[in-house]
Amino acid sequence: MTLTLNSPCDMHLHLRDGAMLENVAPLSSAQFAAAVIMPNLLPPVCTTSEALDYQARIRAVCGESFLPLMSLFFGAHLTKDEIAAAKQAGIRLTKLYPQGVTTNSDKGVSAILCEQNLQIFEMLQDAGMILCIHSETNGFVLEREHSFLPIFVEIARNFPRLTIIMEHISDARSLKFVESFPNTFGTITLHHLLFTLDDLLGSALNPHLFCKPCVKLPRDMRALRRVAFSGNPKFCFGSDSAPHLRTHKECAQCGAGVFSAPVALPALAELFENHGALQSLSAFVCENAPRIYGFTPPQKVVRLRKARFDVAAEYGGVVSLFAGKSLSWILCD
Amino acid sequence: MTLTLNSPCDMHLHLRDGAMLENVAPLSSAQFAAAVIMPNLLPPVCTTSEALDYQARIRAVCGESFLPLMSLFFGAHLTKDEIAAAKQAGIRLTKLYPQGVTTNSDKGVSAILCEQNLQIFEMLQDAGMILCIHSETNGFVLEREHSFLPIFVEIARNFPRLTIIMEHISDARSLKFVESFPNTFGTITLHHLLFTLDDLLGSALNPHLFCKPCVKLPRDMRALRRVAFSGNPKFCFGSDSAPHLRTHKECAQCGAGVFSAPVALPALAELFENHGALQSLSAFVCENAPRIYGFTPPQKVVRLRKARFDVAAEYGGVVSLFAGKSLSWILCD
Repeated sequence: MTLTLNSPCDMHLHLRDGAMLENVAPLSSAQFAAAVIMPNLLPPVCTTSEALDYQARIRAVCGESFLPLMSLFFGAHLTKDEIAAAKQAGIRLTKLYPQGVTTNSDKGVSAILCEQNLQIFEMLQDAGMILCIHSETNGFVLEREHSFLPIFVEIARNFPRLTIIMEHISDARSLKFVESFPNTFGTITLHHLLFTLDDLLGSALNPHLFCKPCVKLPRDMRALRRVAFSGNPKFCFGSDSAPHLRTHKECAQCGAGVFSAPVALPALAELFENHGALQSLSAFVCENAPRIYGFTPPQKVVRLRKARFDVAAEYGGVVSLFAGKSLSWILCD
Repeated sequence: MTLTLNSPCDMHLHLRDGAMLENVAPLSSAQFAAAVIMPNLLPPVCTTSEALDYQARIRAVCGESFLPLMSLFFGAHLTKDEIAAAKQAGIRLTKLYPQGVTTNSDKGVSAILCEQNLQIFEMLQDAGMILCIHSETNGFVLEREHSFLPIFVEIARNFPRLTIIMEHISDARSLKFVESFPNTFGTITLHHLLFTLDDLLGSALNPHLFCKPCVKLPRDMRALRRVAFSGNPKFCFGSDSAPHLRTHKECAQCGAGVFSAPVALPALAELFENHGALQSLSAFVCENAPRIYGFTPPQKVVRLRKARFDVAAEYGGVVSLFAGKSLSWILCD
């Protein structure tokens, strides 16, 4: 059996830089026609010029058949001129991190609804930019996404022509808010579709499943599966694949991030198939994103076949989801 | 300032065996007059003879001024004769582990309320034994203690003369059940008084705070603090200190257990003092347990003074709570 996907897209991807970029980027470009590249490098990617340089480094690794959709780190540096320059260069995404909520977010925003930010939202709206939000507060870990909802709703209501993406939705209670505004959409990761706190800490603690926002309750996973398996047009795939060296995961201060790049499409195919939802996979990974973000990915036909895929124990020192295990779908060469 | 405690007791303690026993037991016997020793060795401590042998090994390390209150692993081996032999030898405790819920519980009980177990509960009751229960099911990790409550209540109701201890209470919803039966009591750990899921996985993931039952929500911690800080006579201290080598914590399959033995009394003193509850510390660590369990601990005066206690980075390869940090109370020599 073969599964054919036309230009699948990963709308939330961490590629890092340097040797790590060279290590992990080919794993994504082998499966996807395009990906939204997160800007939380150290220092973050703030300007059009920095984003274009970063894009060139990615293209040098992945070639021209893979489109890295660059995003700018949200902040006071997003002046009218900077936004105009971004648009001019074909960059339409900005990523807002509340300060301190995840890896490399120290330079994120502390007072999200301050006057200065409202002006930036206005400029982004006027320019037809897209605002991607890591939608968590600094509150109790299981309530962070939920307690961010009033802020999300405030932005959505006040900037109705601004396309807003709630990234890596983890909480069932977020879904109806994302669905209720014409200008709001969401990305959903593989790991939030697959796992709950039971998988992270129900038997042995598994640091490789530790991420932000953390995996949550069975009812959250079920609700996310419902929208993904139905091909709901408000939601699309964003892996949030985030490589950390094994030594940064298996330690006393484990960094947040799940590395799923090597297995993204095979694991999605297996999950959707196991739940009788294979017919919706294309909506979730191919069709919804271009419509939501208003872009055309490069033509790229990706084929999976039903055959055993033995996932490597490590990819250059990084441990993937399903490391050392096998999946039932494999990417065709 | 000095704090004097008369015969403090740790009513839930893992000492392991061999080199680990030699490493960790002196840390507890330096602070406590008596401790309930958990039987989940590999293989578990099932018979009176095994418990007496284990007790002798503990006494060889700790000396005679420390009373190891031995417990037998609950199971079908608890015949009427075995129970009589235990009583004869001064062993009054048995620990029930549901199968698979925590470290070394593979030989635990699968059908807790089966006819055979009901007969054992009856014999334990007739013999005046005490039943200590790891009160968790194998359900979703945050609901395991709560979903065990019907089983706990069933045993408490049907064996009203059997003293039953709910070990390491972690869920606020358990407290009223423990309080509502004359024959039920609870132990509370240091780490469940100090931490929530936020501490385990709110910023970096900290494997040294991973335990069963896992630390839970702020409302759970607050409720546990309320009963501990009030000196509530239904509850007493049980550290559940459980040593694992650093290499078994900082890895891909982190074992469950928090090692708090080196800091137990200093950390309790600091916590109770910070919440204006120092006057209740003696009830929690000294007075409640002898009354609940009906035993007399050895006379042992333990003094703490208000001085900086620098906690070691490791104790023989085991990482303690507050490792590398300092506390404001220290044990007097």
